[in-house]
Amino acid sequence: MRRVGRLHILTDTTLQDRYDHEGLARLALEGGSDTIQFRDKSASTRELIRIARGLSEICRRAGVPLIVNDRVDVAMAADAAGVHLGQSDFPISLARQMLGPDRIIGGSATTLEEATEVMWAGADYVGLGPVFGTDSKPDAKVAIGLERLREVAAALEIPVVAIGGIGIPQVSDILATGAHGIALIQAVVLAADPKAATAGLKAAIDAALPGDGTHA
Amino acid sequence: MRRVGRLHILTDTTLQDRYDHEGLARLALEGGSDTIQFRDKSASTRELIRIARGLSEICRRAGVPLIVNDRVDVAMAADAAGVHLGQSDFPISLARQMLGPDRIIGGSATTLEEATEVMWAGADYVGLGPVFGTDSKPDAKVAIGLERLREVAAALEIPVVAIGGIGIPQVSDILATGAHGIALIQAVVLAADPKAATAGLKAAIDAALPGDGTHA
Repeated sequence: MRRVGRLHILTDTTLQDRYDHEGLARLALEGGSDTIQFRDKSASTRELIRIARGLSEICRRAGVPLIVNDRVDVAMAADAAGVHLGQSDFPISLARQMLGPDRIIGGSATTLEEATEVMWAGADYVGLGPVFGTDSKPDAKVAIGLERLREVAAALEIPVVAIGGIGIPQVSDILATGAHGIALIQAVVLAADPKAATAGLKAAIDAALPGDGTHA
Repeated sequence: MRRVGRLHILTDTTLQDRYDHEGLARLALEGGSDTIQFRDKSASTRELIRIARGLSEICRRAGVPLIVNDRVDVAMAADAAGVHLGQSDFPISLARQMLGPDRIIGGSATTLEEATEVMWAGADYVGLGPVFGTDSKPDAKVAIGLERLREVAAALEIPVVAIGGIGIPQVSDILATGAHGIALIQAVVLAADPKAATAGLKAAIDAALPGDGTHA
């Protein structure tokens, strides 16, 4: 159950308003996403739980883990498969205590030092980025580039999932660094056809990792 | 440990910036508050935990429970004595499951119907209000008045803590309804001297409940 996916799609309703979280998750799953991450920094706790429960049910039927961003309480209330914790979010070691050994925990990092801390704190994977420039977050940091990604992927004993400014053209270069997978927001949620965009990303992953077969 | 206090002071840093949460808590404790509630709807999760841990330590030394507003995860991370959950916050019954039988859980209500639901969900007390007009919350509802307070206090089997527009002049009328205690923001955090304001409120409670002796 703690297998880490290769194609993480984050549901975002601040960059677009055509789809709600559930609508985006459905399209991403239909397109072949093997991990859905629910991120919402503005809704009330009760609203977060309502949405997360809906997503959890959709993901369970699809056999894909739902990862809740930041909120361990919401993940527990929605019986989500795991959480993703940024550097300003809930501490990873405490989250592991609260969630037990069976839930997936991912942690964000920008540097090798942060990534190593995330690993030692008990995370199952590190979300590293932004690899390329992005403007999906108002507090986005300077792009780290492929060399940093390669360095971290080589140094860590847990999978590294690259995030930030990634589209289909970048997939092969990213996976060639040793990164395990990719996480995306804009390339899917802003796409004219989010389902087709997801399918295109999945095809790019499959092409870059022929015969891998570990992703959905 | 689940004894419900009579004088709940909420630390608020949106209405004033003279004091931080910890500064307000210290003054309230020195003035005789027997419950501190930490409420902050804007800080990051990690920042909330940092502040809550500081408050938890101060309150423990004072022998007074720290109640964390809304965030069950933050309360657990800070080993707080309990949580207070509004109607848009974490569900009370789930919070009871997560926190176990020894933590204090309070729930907000405006009507008898909501108050009854809060009680049946497993709360230790109901925070009822706003009893009088207040402008400390942008979404504040119409004042419910003393008659509603009396009705709810008579109907419930758990303590009712009145909130909303309360100052020293209102304390005796409020406690005469059968309400167990009072919760305050503005009358303390906006006071020229928050410690003296708290002490004045405590004296008013003592005068209204002579020989009671159950509050700190």
